[in-house]
Amino acid sequence: MARRKFWGWGKVGEGFTDEEMKPFEADYAAVFGVDGFEVRPFPTVDEIELAPSRLTPPASLAPVCTDDKWERLVHTFGRSFHEQVRIMDRDFAGAPDLVACPRDEGEVVALLDWCAEVSAAAIPFGGGSSVVGGVHPDVGGSFRGAVSIDMGAMDRVLEIDRVSRAARIQAGVYGPHLEDQLRPHGLTLRYYPQSFEYSTLGGWLATRGGGHYATMLTHIDDMTESVRAVTPAGVHDSFRLPGSGAGPSPDRLFLGSEGALGIITEAWMRLQDRPGFRIGHAVEFTRFMDGVEAVRAISQAGLYPANLRLLDHNEVRWSGAGDGTAAVLVLGFESADHALDAWVARALECCRDHGGRLPEEPSAAGDSKDGGAAARWRNAFIKGGHMREMLTARAIIRETFETAITWERFEAFHRDVAGAAARALEEATGQPGIVACRFTHVYPDGPAPYFTFIGLGEQGRLGAQYDAVKNAVSDAIIDAGGTITHHHAVGRDHMPWYARQRSEIFAAALKGAKAALDPVGIMNPGVLIPAP
Amino acid sequence: MARRKFWGWGKVGEGFTDEEMKPFEADYAAVFGVDGFEVRPFPTVDEIELAPSRLTPPASLAPVCTDDKWERLVHTFGRSFHEQVRIMDRDFAGAPDLVACPRDEGEVVALLDWCAEVSAAAIPFGGGSSVVGGVHPDVGGSFRGAVSIDMGAMDRVLEIDRVSRAARIQAGVYGPHLEDQLRPHGLTLRYYPQSFEYSTLGGWLATRGGGHYATMLTHIDDMTESVRAVTPAGVHDSFRLPGSGAGPSPDRLFLGSEGALGIITEAWMRLQDRPGFRIGHAVEFTRFMDGVEAVRAISQAGLYPANLRLLDHNEVRWSGAGDGTAAVLVLGFESADHALDAWVARALECCRDHGGRLPEEPSAAGDSKDGGAAARWRNAFIKGGHMREMLTARAIIRETFETAITWERFEAFHRDVAGAAARALEEATGQPGIVACRFTHVYPDGPAPYFTFIGLGEQGRLGAQYDAVKNAVSDAIIDAGGTITHHHAVGRDHMPWYARQRSEIFAAALKGAKAALDPVGIMNPGVLIPAP
Repeated sequence: MARRKFWGWGKVGEGFTDEEMKPFEADYAAVFGVDGFEVRPFPTVDEIELAPSRLTPPASLAPVCTDDKWERLVHTFGRSFHEQVRIMDRDFAGAPDLVACPRDEGEVVALLDWCAEVSAAAIPFGGGSSVVGGVHPDVGGSFRGAVSIDMGAMDRVLEIDRVSRAARIQAGVYGPHLEDQLRPHGLTLRYYPQSFEYSTLGGWLATRGGGHYATMLTHIDDMTESVRAVTPAGVHDSFRLPGSGAGPSPDRLFLGSEGALGIITEAWMRLQDRPGFRIGHAVEFTRFMDGVEAVRAISQAGLYPANLRLLDHNEVRWSGAGDGTAAVLVLGFESADHALDAWVARALECCRDHGGRLPEEPSAAGDSKDGGAAARWRNAFIKGGHMREMLTARAIIRETFETAITWERFEAFHRDVAGAAARALEEATGQPGIVACRFTHVYPDGPAPYFTFIGLGEQGRLGAQYDAVKNAVSDAIIDAGGTITHHHAVGRDHMPWYARQRSEIFAAALKGAKAALDPVGIMNPGVLIPAP
Repeated sequence: MARRKFWGWGKVGEGFTDEEMKPFEADYAAVFGVDGFEVRPFPTVDEIELAPSRLTPPASLAPVCTDDKWERLVHTFGRSFHEQVRIMDRDFAGAPDLVACPRDEGEVVALLDWCAEVSAAAIPFGGGSSVVGGVHPDVGGSFRGAVSIDMGAMDRVLEIDRVSRAARIQAGVYGPHLEDQLRPHGLTLRYYPQSFEYSTLGGWLATRGGGHYATMLTHIDDMTESVRAVTPAGVHDSFRLPGSGAGPSPDRLFLGSEGALGIITEAWMRLQDRPGFRIGHAVEFTRFMDGVEAVRAISQAGLYPANLRLLDHNEVRWSGAGDGTAAVLVLGFESADHALDAWVARALECCRDHGGRLPEEPSAAGDSKDGGAAARWRNAFIKGGHMREMLTARAIIRETFETAITWERFEAFHRDVAGAAARALEEATGQPGIVACRFTHVYPDGPAPYFTFIGLGEQGRLGAQYDAVKNAVSDAIIDAGGTITHHHAVGRDHMPWYARQRSEIFAAALKGAKAALDPVGIMNPGVLIPAP
């Protein structure tokens, strides 16, 4: 079995080869006016210096704890650009002292008890796909060490309720293994974040993740019947219910808690029948803002398409979906129950009302594996996780950030945020970069815009260059009233802007709740609640 | 202007006359085998003894505070059966010392500051329609008095965003006045609880209310973009966003907080275009459980009907919708955007698959004002608020309770809960009563069943008789894993069962949050968090 890479996405042997990178390199070289790219090699284990582990587990926990160097390296970083730069710099300061893989809830309880006893920070680790520093055990000097608690061994579907379409699922399960367990029952969670292969149910819940679909059941929050979690103060469980009005929702406190209150161990999740009806189109718009109006019309019509992904010209060009001469709306409907002709007909009317053109024949769901803009976009999306490490090695800055805003503010918001990104990119790198935008999720009252920025960086300055852009766009987002994160969570990286977004009163409430559940303050310190 | 009744629903002069009660009396008399009913008169102001107010407001707050006896009486009780019995018993112990009507947020802040200073309990009051003791200022001896804070003067729509379809609305607005302010803009909150006339936005939010519609946007939670609230520790506000993943949702902490954390002063709410397309049917089922299966099929098909209200035989009979020889499903679709033929056709297929019969021509939305079972049901529903005081005066126990449960448990749950209600009714009243069930809300993973129980009580024992039934059904609900409330909140009445439903860990978290926001513990003491 291949091990997880500690320098990039997925397992050793997965991803792009240098040979496969050649066409991408040619593309970037042409845009940036360079001949090619120096490729920095990925680190090897031996190149990295790691301080010895400061923690020795008690005998009872020794079987599930390791200080194996490779494992400590794998659990040092998530997948943010910033962290990738540190990986390339061989800077693994902040590595966990131990990696623990509990096999059941009792072991999670024992681990937290022990961490509290010895003043060790406990860092929950799902798939390690955090792009916001959520799993990085850099917890400061007030702890005697840090334990990365990898939930991967708790990966089973424990119970399936076919009638209500729900399942009780352990939090450590990765996306593909989860779907493998549901498929024989004709059911699916139908939750496909880009990180699907290397992220877990517990991570999705703890970060309030968003899936691939544009409308309706796409925030993991809305798929949750109940959450079970281990906190240092004890085990929380909630009644499994389709709906309730009994006080503030306990589930909604743990959803988005990012490991700061405890570790989610399992959840009852709402499932769906596997869709058999699919229909989709890729609709072109000359002007991006016309596409925006079409998307708003569809989102306010009560049609709830599975896909409603508007790509601006740059996004079309740089995701490989087309040549970039038009904006493209990937529109798709799915159902397990009924044909969707009436739905798609009305959605296409909304597109035509706003100047949309249909260059292609309908395809299954607008993003099937057969040709077309939608399929090309999908293929690039799926391989996206592997691209980061390859571009960083070439000093090409390519990163994304996402937010949400109401419709009436979108045009100015888009101008301000994209403008801030473009200016910061040019200032940081000395030449113009590329800023692209797409909608990942759409609500009746506004879109979740997802921005990509691309610039030519410089080895040695890459972290500072990236930070300059990230800081500028984060300021622009908060200044304009957007959320600092729509589905990537707060982590350590977004804390300064989260502190501007959430009220002082809510911060006090959350701190009060944390003090009750985690009195010693061992749970993922520095995330959501500033470390004392 | 007529004043609010302190003995019943709505304003003086509204409701049924004794003459209008005659056909209902005849109906109940026949069922219970009695000749008629002694009618106890409603209390008059002079009959009620009230202790003098223990509180004197500071000069700055004197203009918005009153100790007028009528106002104190109006603000003593909500509308639970239990409270109605105390009203008839002229027992207004626990009346507030003062009633305050703040005109702006600054006055709310000043009121809470003053309450904290003098150790007075602050009881938020919206429309006073609580059926769970949520507004009753019976706060125990550790307070120097109690102030009922009536938000009715803060009743304006402050801002409308037509593009995103949202509005910033003051929390004290009553349903009809809210819709009056939205109508000129072609918009609606489309939230119609049975209490619509005499309940407020702030009350809906604080209690996680549920509206009239069966699926999709019907929990007030899901219509909320952001909440603004005054707590004793300061003013909370959240960014107005269509979606966010930044930490646990602040809004979801205040939704359902029932005044225990602070007073909601305003909110940005998602609105909808006013629907122009409506189509509906009343479908009959010989067997209730066949109707249940049809409803499950529709709810899992992704069709999202506006109405999906299944009435069992007794509910049909006792709501006046029909003769009770069949269960009836009131099925309706609405849209502001498109014709709904495809939607309704598929839903009717689901009904026919499970033995549903269509005795009537389609009517607008299944509950228009023209004839038919749906219309008869609607008319009885709208007048329902006024019936309670008339029946209590006649010692007829008629009360409802609601819950939610997943589909696979529903049949046994229904049997257990309805059985417990029937047994307790017979035991408490000495003769069989009537237990009816309908679905008010339906989710893909389960229904929200709403039960009605009717029994012949006895003056002087009415409160104890009611309590016996309510305790029995509440035990049965929690024993079977249902929620103690789906959309009527916890209040003071549900606390023993809420304590069984929510985990100790969540209770500790909520208590920690309350300690941070309400350090002196003045906010609606005894609700959600046991008084110390």
